[in-house]
Amino acid sequence: MHDFSPEPEDQFVDDERLEKIRDYLSESDLDGLIGFSPANSYYLTGCYAGMYSRPVLGVVTPSESAFVGPRLEERKARRTAWTDRVLTYEDSDNPFEILAAAIPDSAETLGYDAAKAQPSWVESLSAQSNADFVDATDHFYSLRIVKTDWELDKIRRAQDLATAGCEAMFESVRSGKPEIEVVAEVQQAYYDTYLDKHSEFDIGTANELGQYGFASILSGPHGLEPHSLSSSRMIEGGDSVVGIALPSVQGYICEEERTFLVGDVDDEIEEGMEMLVDVREQVIDRVEPGKDVGEIDQWAYEQIKSRGFGDYVQHRTGHGEGITIHEQPALNAQKTGELEPGMVISIEPGLYFHEKGNALRHSDTLIITESGAESVTETNAGVLRVD
Amino acid sequence: MHDFSPEPEDQFVDDERLEKIRDYLSESDLDGLIGFSPANSYYLTGCYAGMYSRPVLGVVTPSESAFVGPRLEERKARRTAWTDRVLTYEDSDNPFEILAAAIPDSAETLGYDAAKAQPSWVESLSAQSNADFVDATDHFYSLRIVKTDWELDKIRRAQDLATAGCEAMFESVRSGKPEIEVVAEVQQAYYDTYLDKHSEFDIGTANELGQYGFASILSGPHGLEPHSLSSSRMIEGGDSVVGIALPSVQGYICEEERTFLVGDVDDEIEEGMEMLVDVREQVIDRVEPGKDVGEIDQWAYEQIKSRGFGDYVQHRTGHGEGITIHEQPALNAQKTGELEPGMVISIEPGLYFHEKGNALRHSDTLIITESGAESVTETNAGVLRVD
Repeated sequence: MHDFSPEPEDQFVDDERLEKIRDYLSESDLDGLIGFSPANSYYLTGCYAGMYSRPVLGVVTPSESAFVGPRLEERKARRTAWTDRVLTYEDSDNPFEILAAAIPDSAETLGYDAAKAQPSWVESLSAQSNADFVDATDHFYSLRIVKTDWELDKIRRAQDLATAGCEAMFESVRSGKPEIEVVAEVQQAYYDTYLDKHSEFDIGTANELGQYGFASILSGPHGLEPHSLSSSRMIEGGDSVVGIALPSVQGYICEEERTFLVGDVDDEIEEGMEMLVDVREQVIDRVEPGKDVGEIDQWAYEQIKSRGFGDYVQHRTGHGEGITIHEQPALNAQKTGELEPGMVISIEPGLYFHEKGNALRHSDTLIITESGAESVTETNAGVLRVD
Repeated sequence: MHDFSPEPEDQFVDDERLEKIRDYLSESDLDGLIGFSPANSYYLTGCYAGMYSRPVLGVVTPSESAFVGPRLEERKARRTAWTDRVLTYEDSDNPFEILAAAIPDSAETLGYDAAKAQPSWVESLSAQSNADFVDATDHFYSLRIVKTDWELDKIRRAQDLATAGCEAMFESVRSGKPEIEVVAEVQQAYYDTYLDKHSEFDIGTANELGQYGFASILSGPHGLEPHSLSSSRMIEGGDSVVGIALPSVQGYICEEERTFLVGDVDDEIEEGMEMLVDVREQVIDRVEPGKDVGEIDQWAYEQIKSRGFGDYVQHRTGHGEGITIHEQPALNAQKTGELEPGMVISIEPGLYFHEKGNALRHSDTLIITESGAESVTETNAGVLRVD
């Protein structure tokens, strides 16, 4: 085992966050928070571990903070973790003994991210510790839902990459081109923008879809698989093409999506796109602090339905984003909850024509402000036509 | 809810797998298997869902099989799932009611992937069902550890992409170039090879590191973070550069790693690389059915130690791979278990010089055969020097 004090580089330190977490703890009945998932341990420690099969832990109590992970993460922890301590283990160590050693004796009730933690890891840790472990999934949601200024800065930087990626789509989407070739152009735009503007940070993450910035181009019927990767499918006249730009900087993602109509498309698809552009603008205008998330989704759906396209809706209007692609709040008619300044959401009503083989979806990222919302997305959001 | 019979395209159907799963079930005390994770539900159904925040399920019993997921996955399920049924839900549905509907009444004891399933999802499903849910994590490991011929075919196809990616590294790694620019070349080689040779399959996955094929170039001290992504760091003379190619075809990954010595490197690094190349060849020669995994790791470590480099080892000799990057078996001295034909493993002893800022690691992928092992990796595995 190695036990040391990390020396994070300035740009990786979110001064506000540790204080925010401790303020939150002081108002809860928890003596500390433990994050097992890469996203939650990153949130607590500043070190975004690439976790595959070995346990990783972030722990914050009122008096102490630590990152624990395999030796493989030692150098990354040294340069990024803002915790008091870092503990690393070797393959020959029992990691749970070392994880337990990072928990202060004074901590009796510790909240952990039960929705993401491997139950067997929690059991093994529990066996080594006197503390009670309780499900704090909702506490993590509550903390992460409102971003600090440092977090918003990373999301704006990721947006620079997303904008460049969408500009590459404008250049690259055309009939006769395979989806995957457009993806290569979008990724190249991420890399160029990263090297040019934000090279002092880490690009992408080793988790979820992040890698070096997710990109997907889904053309024609392939657009009916909105959570898919691009393929060898050739873009054709009559297609709608949904382009997804989802890059990340220092683990914070920003989503931007644009739909292109290629050549002569079906009249109903053309009308659907015009309607969607119009309704989406109105939805964005309605986003402000105090607004109920369920009401936003319901209102968007009613508009789309009143204009004859209700049968083609198959998902919510948007979602929070941050370290992960889908965070709280969900803009879903089944949910309630008010928007607050510092939340970051996507607005992305979509239409899915299963018979005709077309999908339509623009997505912008909005930061909720004191008085309304700031759209960090700058790309043309009209009806986009290409040859 | 939509309930239909999928019509998978021939190339996505692993004829052997469903029978293998049912043979396994007949010898267990389980009435069926449920996979909640994308990897395990893919293993059971043939449909690799891009799961972010919505539950997905694969279920196989002796008489029935089903894939359940959000409407977003409907088209993918239609073209890839080899199950009897597909059930999809909308955002306004209770997914757990629909998941429960996919479980036959005759199934009393169902095994699920407890290490990966969200406990709250299991609870919600359990509340809707009469079946008992038991931890079947080890059953999934046992099933997935030996590959079918269909699975091995996908791994060999992914290896074509990995080989092309490593060839791109030979062309591209040189001093004065940022790591991320080499990554772009490696990814382009994946895309070109995919379009040229394997375009009838899906490239990559929307899970873990897969995306369109993971690639990372880690130069100099950055190589001490073996689970990291490339950055803007400029490759310099004196660096060792670890290049990681980990592409996937239809969700099956293949790992290949090569280390390049740039310009004049420290004598100890040069000697370490020569030693590693030699020891690794001997380890590969020893891989055959019946060999104990712990013994392989222990033997490799003893060789490295006897040649004066024991202090620089910080991880096991290798690991299984397949749908995920790290599968069973682990080639770790703390484990036991015999290699069997059809297992797929990496051999990748590494040296990490924390003071000098160098890392060294070649990795090949081997398929265990009846009489020994087939290396699917074809790239030069000697001491690789570039300017």
